[in-house]
Amino acid sequence: MRARLAALSAGLEELGCEALLVLAPSAQDTDLAPFLPGSAHIGECLLVLPRGGEPRLGYLTPMEREEAAATGLALLTPEDLEIARLSSEYAEPATFQARVMGKALELSGLSPGRVALAGHGAAGTIQGACALLASQGWIWVPGNSLVFAARKRKEREELEGIREAAEGTCEAMRAVARMLAEAAPGPEGELWLGGAPLTVARLRAEVGRLFAARGYDQPRGNIIAPGEEGGVPHSAGTQDRAVRLGEPLVVDLFPRGRLFADCTRTFCVGEPPAAFADAHGRVLEALILSHRLSRPGTRGWDIQEAVCALFGEAGYPTQISEPGTTHGYVHNLGHGVGFELHETPIFKKTSGAEGVLREGDVFTLEPGLYEPEQGWGVRLEDLVYLGPDGLENLTPLPYDFDPAAWG
Amino acid sequence: MRARLAALSAGLEELGCEALLVLAPSAQDTDLAPFLPGSAHIGECLLVLPRGGEPRLGYLTPMEREEAAATGLALLTPEDLEIARLSSEYAEPATFQARVMGKALELSGLSPGRVALAGHGAAGTIQGACALLASQGWIWVPGNSLVFAARKRKEREELEGIREAAEGTCEAMRAVARMLAEAAPGPEGELWLGGAPLTVARLRAEVGRLFAARGYDQPRGNIIAPGEEGGVPHSAGTQDRAVRLGEPLVVDLFPRGRLFADCTRTFCVGEPPAAFADAHGRVLEALILSHRLSRPGTRGWDIQEAVCALFGEAGYPTQISEPGTTHGYVHNLGHGVGFELHETPIFKKTSGAEGVLREGDVFTLEPGLYEPEQGWGVRLEDLVYLGPDGLENLTPLPYDFDPAAWG
Repeated sequence: MRARLAALSAGLEELGCEALLVLAPSAQDTDLAPFLPGSAHIGECLLVLPRGGEPRLGYLTPMEREEAAATGLALLTPEDLEIARLSSEYAEPATFQARVMGKALELSGLSPGRVALAGHGAAGTIQGACALLASQGWIWVPGNSLVFAARKRKEREELEGIREAAEGTCEAMRAVARMLAEAAPGPEGELWLGGAPLTVARLRAEVGRLFAARGYDQPRGNIIAPGEEGGVPHSAGTQDRAVRLGEPLVVDLFPRGRLFADCTRTFCVGEPPAAFADAHGRVLEALILSHRLSRPGTRGWDIQEAVCALFGEAGYPTQISEPGTTHGYVHNLGHGVGFELHETPIFKKTSGAEGVLREGDVFTLEPGLYEPEQGWGVRLEDLVYLGPDGLENLTPLPYDFDPAAWG
Repeated sequence: MRARLAALSAGLEELGCEALLVLAPSAQDTDLAPFLPGSAHIGECLLVLPRGGEPRLGYLTPMEREEAAATGLALLTPEDLEIARLSSEYAEPATFQARVMGKALELSGLSPGRVALAGHGAAGTIQGACALLASQGWIWVPGNSLVFAARKRKEREELEGIREAAEGTCEAMRAVARMLAEAAPGPEGELWLGGAPLTVARLRAEVGRLFAARGYDQPRGNIIAPGEEGGVPHSAGTQDRAVRLGEPLVVDLFPRGRLFADCTRTFCVGEPPAAFADAHGRVLEALILSHRLSRPGTRGWDIQEAVCALFGEAGYPTQISEPGTTHGYVHNLGHGVGFELHETPIFKKTSGAEGVLREGDVFTLEPGLYEPEQGWGVRLEDLVYLGPDGLENLTPLPYDFDPAAWG
């Protein structure tokens, strides 16, 4: 946390700002959570980080006293912020917000000057509050990117949170493999299990059960996409669609425990289409190559280029050989994972420092090949941690498309 | 939808604004979804509603073409908005956002003037983008409250979405009752089921399974709070805590299907504490009274006062007799439900028009009594629709605390 705060202070200096102000609808806000040692059940709140100083957490509801105290941060209580008085005097949300922000900055020893603004909220309220405070001399500088960059390197506690979510993800993926392995083909080629067709909804129910038992949610849903649905990377899969014999199934799970995890496997029960089997082998090759190339100092984009070269040699179009292609390798190789499902490192050609892999990063590697017109897609995705001892796979599952091989 | 658009235009006129601009991280944004006929899988997007005109939906990713077209709204495509050019020319998020907003307003026939701003997003980016556009003559007015008010009355499609989510909620609540009814006391007074203690995690797993099978998520989690945990209304319940014989259990489920639903029941297996049984009867009385008083034109606060009077006569402290009390009736009576878990009508003393019940409203009625020091709480919550034929209970479940009575 020391290193993160120091990086933020250096960033504030670069922006010429006296402080960072984070506005948050809850303590789970992706710009606020990086300041907390663990998770906290706090609703609307804010955080002030004076440059070179200590962060202070402001909360609005007296009932959240214990939760706020448990963060160990210096606090701005509802009493300090005079929430009761302000909320009765200022019914209009932007005016109320401005008064709370002004009070929090003042209590943190700041006077009107340049402040970097991060966090999230209601657009009109934020704009209105900032405009009011601007008329009192406060100067706002966009600060979301600053926090986004500062949360790239994961703290030990955060890595533990991701590791735990990854374990839950592996458990759920094994449960899906088990249901597929136990299913038997029905008269129309659909897979049946326990006297009924094995639908996407049933697989999703089992995944939901396992995550709920661990207290995880799935704020971005999941992808359980058979056949032609798996041929389009952003298709989530239709509930009442049954899985069929000889048909590939893309399963991409990305639950949030304390933090997010993310993992994809592609299955096929029975004889697969020949082109799919070939593609699955190529994708696995690309994934192994990506693991091997993921070292501190490497740019994510360089690995993307290597993967494109591999797929290109095998005759598949890629985003480099055919920009905008909807078959072949149609997406990017990976993304950082943590407080949000997608964060730094970023695997884009245009990325600067946020695109370079460093020790402490947690990210996905997820090559894939898609043939929507042939009715299939294949993607294999590992979640990895670039640690002091090299690359660690946080999702060490089998890669086999045959669920029977999962044992 | 006609009535909603007319109300928004009237609101814009009152604010002296030429248009409403909604910024949204996704089409699920609670200020954007009220303009869509159903659900749409669209990421970052925006909507422009010129006063007295038709809304236009702007989206940023060409891949979302079909989803955007399916909304039936007039569109601002990524090509119209020149997203490819703008994103390569403006790497800084606030500048990029400002260009996209400016382009969307211009293509909607607007020139610099007063615009109401709604939706949600990254605080620094919004502030920065608005400041840039302000320097070009655009004048911003907070507009979140305008949309918040306009979505109070539910459209027929929206009511169907809530009704469906309420059915799923009832199914899950019945499943919880069934597990409790089937459980038997173990040697230490814990309830056992299927050879293991019946924990909060196991109940949560079953609820998660049923919601996932329907494709619902639980973005705000749920409350399954036994004993002393149920004695504090905001305690969610600890995963590994087992339910015990003779111990009350508060179960509050609020999943999101297309829209949210919300329902609470309180159970007790075996002989309940006498004070709890009495309180449960009082809470049911208060709920029945609330149903009876919920008529068009009534203020939510008036019903809250009636409930406080009822509890007061029975000897319980309330927020009116003892502001800030942590035992007795410690919270508000209800809240609107729809795109968000909490929306209008609002049951506060200070509420204006947004606090008056009208035909078309969907809201909860949820009286409760809490004795944290005695280790229990009781809350009964129905989700109701105030329709043309009177009040309809969307969660018609038994109220009995004995799960055996649920049959």
